[in-house]
Amino acid sequence: MPRSIYLPEHDAFRASVRTFLAREVEPRLEEYRAAHGLPREFWLRAGHHGFLGLEIPEEFGGGGADDYRFNAVLTEELAKVSMALASCVGIHADIVVPYLLHLATDERKKRWLPRMASGELLTAIAMTEPSGGSDLARMRSTAVRDGSEFVVNGSKTFITNGYSADLIVVALRTTSGRGARGLSLFGIETSRAGFARGRRLDKVGQDESDTAELFFHDVRVSEDDLIGEYDGGFGHLMTWLPQERLNGAVTNLAHARAVLDETIRYSRERAAFGQPIGQFQHNKFLIADLVTRVEVTQAYVDQCVMSHVEGTLSPVDAAKAKWWTAQVQNDVLDHCVQLHGGYGYMNEYRVARAWRDARVSKIWAGSNEIMKELIGRDLGL
Amino acid sequence: MPRSIYLPEHDAFRASVRTFLAREVEPRLEEYRAAHGLPREFWLRAGHHGFLGLEIPEEFGGGGADDYRFNAVLTEELAKVSMALASCVGIHADIVVPYLLHLATDERKKRWLPRMASGELLTAIAMTEPSGGSDLARMRSTAVRDGSEFVVNGSKTFITNGYSADLIVVALRTTSGRGARGLSLFGIETSRAGFARGRRLDKVGQDESDTAELFFHDVRVSEDDLIGEYDGGFGHLMTWLPQERLNGAVTNLAHARAVLDETIRYSRERAAFGQPIGQFQHNKFLIADLVTRVEVTQAYVDQCVMSHVEGTLSPVDAAKAKWWTAQVQNDVLDHCVQLHGGYGYMNEYRVARAWRDARVSKIWAGSNEIMKELIGRDLGL
Amino acid sequence: MPRSIYLPEHDAFRASVRTFLAREVEPRLEEYRAAHGLPREFWLRAGHHGFLGLEIPEEFGGGGADDYRFNAVLTEELAKVSMALASCVGIHADIVVPYLLHLATDERKKRWLPRMASGELLTAIAMTEPSGGSDLARMRSTAVRDGSEFVVNGSKTFITNGYSADLIVVALRTTSGRGARGLSLFGIETSRAGFARGRRLDKVGQDESDTAELFFHDVRVSEDDLIGEYDGGFGHLMTWLPQERLNGAVTNLAHARAVLDETIRYSRERAAFGQPIGQFQHNKFLIADLVTRVEVTQAYVDQCVMSHVEGTLSPVDAAKAKWWTAQVQNDVLDHCVQLHGGYGYMNEYRVARAWRDARVSKIWAGSNEIMKELIGRDLGL
Amino acid sequence: MPRSIYLPEHDAFRASVRTFLAREVEPRLEEYRAAHGLPREFWLRAGHHGFLGLEIPEEFGGGGADDYRFNAVLTEELAKVSMALASCVGIHADIVVPYLLHLATDERKKRWLPRMASGELLTAIAMTEPSGGSDLARMRSTAVRDGSEFVVNGSKTFITNGYSADLIVVALRTTSGRGARGLSLFGIETSRAGFARGRRLDKVGQDESDTAELFFHDVRVSEDDLIGEYDGGFGHLMTWLPQERLNGAVTNLAHARAVLDETIRYSRERAAFGQPIGQFQHNKFLIADLVTRVEVTQAYVDQCVMSHVEGTLSPVDAAKAKWWTAQVQNDVLDHCVQLHGGYGYMNEYRVARAWRDARVSKIWAGSNEIMKELIGRDLGL
Repeated sequence: MPRSIYLPEHDAFRASVRTFLAREVEPRLEEYRAAHGLPREFWLRAGHHGFLGLEIPEEFGGGGADDYRFNAVLTEELAKVSMALASCVGIHADIVVPYLLHLATDERKKRWLPRMASGELLTAIAMTEPSGGSDLARMRSTAVRDGSEFVVNGSKTFITNGYSADLIVVALRTTSGRGARGLSLFGIETSRAGFARGRRLDKVGQDESDTAELFFHDVRVSEDDLIGEYDGGFGHLMTWLPQERLNGAVTNLAHARAVLDETIRYSRERAAFGQPIGQFQHNKFLIADLVTRVEVTQAYVDQCVMSHVEGTLSPVDAAKAKWWTAQVQNDVLDHCVQLHGGYGYMNEYRVARAWRDARVSKIWAGSNEIMKELIGRDLGL
Repeated sequence: MPRSIYLPEHDAFRASVRTFLAREVEPRLEEYRAAHGLPREFWLRAGHHGFLGLEIPEEFGGGGADDYRFNAVLTEELAKVSMALASCVGIHADIVVPYLLHLATDERKKRWLPRMASGELLTAIAMTEPSGGSDLARMRSTAVRDGSEFVVNGSKTFITNGYSADLIVVALRTTSGRGARGLSLFGIETSRAGFARGRRLDKVGQDESDTAELFFHDVRVSEDDLIGEYDGGFGHLMTWLPQERLNGAVTNLAHARAVLDETIRYSRERAAFGQPIGQFQHNKFLIADLVTRVEVTQAYVDQCVMSHVEGTLSPVDAAKAKWWTAQVQNDVLDHCVQLHGGYGYMNEYRVARAWRDARVSKIWAGSNEIMKELIGRDLGL
Repeated sequence: MPRSIYLPEHDAFRASVRTFLAREVEPRLEEYRAAHGLPREFWLRAGHHGFLGLEIPEEFGGGGADDYRFNAVLTEELAKVSMALASCVGIHADIVVPYLLHLATDERKKRWLPRMASGELLTAIAMTEPSGGSDLARMRSTAVRDGSEFVVNGSKTFITNGYSADLIVVALRTTSGRGARGLSLFGIETSRAGFARGRRLDKVGQDESDTAELFFHDVRVSEDDLIGEYDGGFGHLMTWLPQERLNGAVTNLAHARAVLDETIRYSRERAAFGQPIGQFQHNKFLIADLVTRVEVTQAYVDQCVMSHVEGTLSPVDAAKAKWWTAQVQNDVLDHCVQLHGGYGYMNEYRVARAWRDARVSKIWAGSNEIMKELIGRDLGL
Repeated sequence: MPRSIYLPEHDAFRASVRTFLAREVEPRLEEYRAAHGLPREFWLRAGHHGFLGLEIPEEFGGGGADDYRFNAVLTEELAKVSMALASCVGIHADIVVPYLLHLATDERKKRWLPRMASGELLTAIAMTEPSGGSDLARMRSTAVRDGSEFVVNGSKTFITNGYSADLIVVALRTTSGRGARGLSLFGIETSRAGFARGRRLDKVGQDESDTAELFFHDVRVSEDDLIGEYDGGFGHLMTWLPQERLNGAVTNLAHARAVLDETIRYSRERAAFGQPIGQFQHNKFLIADLVTRVEVTQAYVDQCVMSHVEGTLSPVDAAKAKWWTAQVQNDVLDHCVQLHGGYGYMNEYRVARAWRDARVSKIWAGSNEIMKELIGRDLGL
C-alpha cells in the first residue's frame, strides 16, 4: 500500500539524509559498534547537515521546521541503517529538544540550543532509577533548594547517550510525599562537580549506542537549570510524551520494514532443497503475513504522524503506536532471523544485530505493559 | 484515534441508515434468525430508503453516488447490527452491482438494475463448487452455446442469498482445457426451467442469512445473459475483486468493533470478586490490546477505502485488508466471549452469535490462505 | 508417541464402551441434538452396561473399580463421539459420585447410589449463580436451618443436566459473613416442593446436553440431605477438585484428538488445486504442529491420570491440565475448521459442531483465568 | 508436577554433577565467555569425573552406563548452568560417541574413545555446508577414494566445538548423483595436512562455545577413518537422530526451566509500584502460563527419555520433542526477559544471555521447519 503522507519536500529531505548516511555513516558503522558508541564526529557531521535541529527555531541555530514529518523522515532513514542510530539521535533531537525549547529560560536556550543543533552539545534524558524502574511516584533522586541553587543527589540508570552526553535533562524529586506530583526537571551539565558516570552498560543489542548509569553526589545546579515549573515535572513529561512515543513508533516500524525488505530479497535469492526459500509455501505465507502486519501498522503510524503534525495526537493514541510497533517489530524480526537459518544467528548479518537491537523496544520508555495500563485507564478500566 | 475519512454528508447518511436499522430492522432481528433468512419485506424497505442502489446510476433507479464511502458507511452500520445483514446486503449491493453495471447489456441493465435498487430483484453470486472450492481453474459447471442460447449444467454451493435470490451471477466454464481462462459470467434468473435449489444450509452462524446449494440442469439462458466477454470471466472477476474484498474488510472490522465496544461497557459494569471485571489487570491489559489492534486495523481499512475512492486500490492490498481484518475480528471476538464468562456461550447474548458469525470470515470469498498465496506471489515469491 | 498407562483390562473395557457407543448411541446422536438433551433411555442403557457406577462400590450397585483409568477410558471414548456426552456423563459419574460416596449419610448412599449406577437417578451439581459467576465467597443462595430441616432459597445457572436431573448437589450459604467458609453442600431431589427449572438454555454448542437455570423457593430439605460438614462445603469442593478438573482435561484432549485424526484423514483425501490439501506445505506444517501439541499434552494428562490413580494429584497440577487442554483443544479445533474450508462452517460436519462444543471448555468449571490465578498463588505470587 | 523417571542412582549422579559445576565451572564461566570457548582444562576435569564417557564401555575407558537417564541428568545440569555448556558437551559425549562406538573400526575405537572419555580428544560433527544448509542431498564436500586412502575436499560451517576439536565426524559425498544416498561419514583428525579452520564465528549467543567454519583441501584420510558403510552415511545419521534430537530437547527444556525458576524468584522479590512485580495479575497469569507450558512439556520429554531408555524412541517422536522444546524455550525466555524489565537487556543478567543463547535452538540440528516437514511426512502428508 503506497504511503500518502509525504510531500515532495519531505522526499527531497529524505534523499539528503540518505546521502549523508551512505557517504558518512554506513562505512563507519562497524567502527561505532566496536567502540560501543557514536563518536563526536558523527554528531558534528549530522549537525553540520542540519539534522539535529529540525525543530529548533532559526534564531537558536536550527532549521525551524514546524512539521514533524521531517523528524519522521530523519528517524526512518536512521532506523533503516541502525536502530541504535535512530535511538541516539531521537533522544537528542526529538525528545530532549521540546523540553528545552518550550520550558527552559531564554538564557539557557541561547546557551544550549545552538550547540545542540550543531552537535557540539550532546544530550540525554534521565528518569529511570535502579530501584524503581518506570515508577515516577517512587523516584528517589532529589534536588534540594539551597538559596538560588539546587543540590542534587541520587542515581539514574539505563541512560541512552549517558556515557557521552554533555547535558542531561534529569527528573528529580523536589517535594517528598507528593508522589509523581513532587518532581521537577533540571538540565544538568555533565561538567558539574559531583557528577559521575558508571561504566558503559553491556547490552544485548544496540551496539552503536552508549548507555550508562549516572551518579549525582551533591551536584550543585543553578535555579536557571530548572526546566519548567517547580514540582511540575510530571505534567511536563506528560505534555511531551506523544512525541517521545511517536519517535519510538516510527523507529520501531522503519527498522522492522528495512530488515523485512532485506529478508524478502534474501528469500528470493537463497536456495535450499532446489528452490528459492521464499517459494516454499510456509515461508511464502509467513512473508505475506509479515508484510501485511507491517503495512497495516504503517497506516496507523502515518495517521499518528499526521495527527501530531496537526497537534492533536493524544498520549494514549501514541501509547498504542509505541507498544504495537514494538510488538510487530520483534515478531517480524524473529521470523526474519528464522528465514536466514544459521546466518540469522551470526552477528555479521544485519538481521542478527537487528533482532538483538529490537528487543529493548518492548521494555524502554514505558514497557508494553505500562502502555497497556495507560490505554486501559483511558477506557475507564 | 479519531477517524478522518468521512465528511458531513457521510455522517448524515450514516444517521439515516441508523434510523432505518433502529426502527425497522432491530426489532425484527430475532424473527429473521428464527426464519434463517431475511424476508422480502426487509429488502423492499432497504430499497425504499435508497440503500440498495448507492452505486447504481439515477437513470437505472439508483442513487448514483460515485463515492465508495457511502457504501462503507452502509456496510459498517449493517455490520454493527448483524454481520449476516452486512453480508447479504453486501453481496447484492456492493458485489453484484458492478458486474451488471459495467458488463451487462443495456437491455439487461434496464431489466435488472432498477428492481435491484428497489429490492424487488434479489441477487447472489455463485463461484464455489462442491468439488473444488475456490479453485477457478478446475471449475466444472458449464455453459455450452446452442445457437443464440447457452445450456447450463452443474452445481454451486455455499451461496449467500442463494435460497431467496431472483438473479444469480454465475461463473461457468465455456471452454474446457483453458483453466481459469475458459470461464464466463452469466446472469441467470432463478425462474429459468432446470434451475433448482437445495435446502438452506445449516450453518455455524450467520443465522439471519440463507445459504444454499444450487443446481443447474439444462438451464437455457440467452446470449444477453452473458455478463462481459465470452471466456473473459476470470478477468472480470479480478477487476472487481478489490471492492469485494474491501466490502469484506469493512464488514469484519465494523462487526468486531461494535461487539468490542459492547464488551468494554459490560466489563465496566459486570462485577466479580468485588470489582468490575474490566479492572482486573489481566482483563484491562487484554482490552487495551484489543482496542489497539482494532484501531491500528481501522487506519489501514480507512486508507484502503480512500484508495478505492480514488480508484487506485490494488487487488493485493485489498487481499491484505480482507485476511487481516478476518483474523483480527476472530481474535477480538474470541476474547470478548471469554470476557463474558458463561453468558458468552449463550445464544441470547450478542457476543455469542457474533463469535459464531465471524468464523466464516477467514474461509469465504478466498480464505486467509488464498489471500496469503496472492500476497506472496505479488512479492515475487 | 505410543501411550503407556493402559493395561490389557483397560483396553478390554475400552472395547466394550466403543461397542456400546457404536451400536446404541451413535445412531441416535442426531436425535439427541434435535431434542437438546439426552433421553432417559441413554442413561438407562449406559447404566445397564455398568458405565455409570465405575467408582461406586458393589454394595451400592456399582462396579467398585478403584482405578481412575477406567473412568478415563470411558471419558475418552465418550468425548471421541461427542463432547457433550462426555460432559453429561462426567458430571453424573465422575464429579457427583465422590461427594455422595464419601460425604453422604449411609441412608442417602443406599437411596441414591444404586439408582445413579443404574441410570434411574440422574444427577447434576450446582455452584454458579447468575450474579456472581465462579466467586464462591459471594454466593447468595441460602439454606437456613429450621429444626431438623433446612429451607433453601436462591437460584443457580448454567447447570449441565439441570433440565433433566433428579438429584442436584447444590452449594448453599449456611452462614453469612464468612465468605467461602460459610457454605455447605446439599443433595436436593428435584421433586421437592418449591424447586423449579427455567427453560433449557440456548447454547453456542453442546447440543446434546441440557443446561438450565434452577430456582429454589422455600424448598425444604432434611438434615440428611446435608452432604458432609455444615459450613464445610468449600473444603469438600477443594478435596474433589482434582478429579473434576482431570475429567475436564481428559475430555478436552480426547475430543480434540478425535477431530484432529478425522481432519488428517480428510486432508489426505480432499483435493484442491490438484493435490490433497494436506500436502500443501502450509497445511502439512500446521498439522505437524497440531499433532505435536496434542501428543505433548497427552503425556501430561496421562501423567496426571497416573498421579490420580496413586492418589497424589494436586488441585493445582489438575488446574494446569484443565486450562492447558482447554486451550489446546480450542486452538486445534479452530485450525481443523479452517482445514475443512466451507464445510467446516456447516453443522452437518462434525468439526463444525466440535468447534462450537469446545468453546465452553475455557469458561466452565473455573475459567482459564481462574486456573491461572490458582497456579499463580501456588507459586507464591 | 513431580517428575517420576529418576531413581536414587540418578539423583546421586545429579548431585555429583552439581558439585563439579558449582566448584569447578561456575566460578570460571565469565572467563569462558570472554574467551569465546571452553578451555581444555574444562574438558579434562569433566573427563576426570567420568562425565564424558557415560555411554562408552569400560573397556574403552568409559562408564559403560547403558541408561540414557544418566546422559539426561548430565545434560540437564549443564543446561541449567549454561546452554552452551550443554551444547558443547552434548556434541562430544551424546552425539559423536554413538557413531564411533557402533560404527568405527576396533582400532579406531581404541585410539579415540578412551581419550574422548578423558577429555584429551575433543570432538565435533560436521554436516552443514555454506551453500546448502541442512539439505543433505545437495552436500558438495567430497571424499574420493585413492587406493586405501580418501582425499577430502570442501568446507563445513556452523560447527560447534569446531575451533578446538581434535577429531571431527564429517559427512562427505562419496558418490555423486545419488543425493543423500551417496554420503559417507569419516572421522577426520584435525592434525591432518590440508585441514584448516576459519575464525571463531561471532554468534548472537552461546558465548561459551566456539563455532567455526572448516576447510578441507586435499586432506588425506585412511580407509580406517570411514565410519560405517561406504555410501551409508545417510542411514547412519538417521539411526542416531533420536538421541541427537533428544539431547537437544533435554537441553532446551532444562535451560528454560532454570531461567524461569530464577525469574519467579526475581518476581517475588523485585518490587515496582509498591508491590512485588509477580503479584501484578498480568505477570501472575503469565508466569502461571509459562510454568504450565514447561511442566506439560517436561512430561513429554520425560516420556521420550524413558522411551529411548527402552530403545523405542522413533526419530519422528524425537523431532516433535526437539522443535516443541525449542519453541517453548524461546517463548518462555522472551517473557522472562520482559519480566526483568531493563535488566533483562543487560548481559550481566543471566536471563539476557539465556535469551540470546536459546535463539539457535529453533535453527540448528534441523530447524523447526525441517522437523515439521518430517512429522508431516510421517503422517502421510
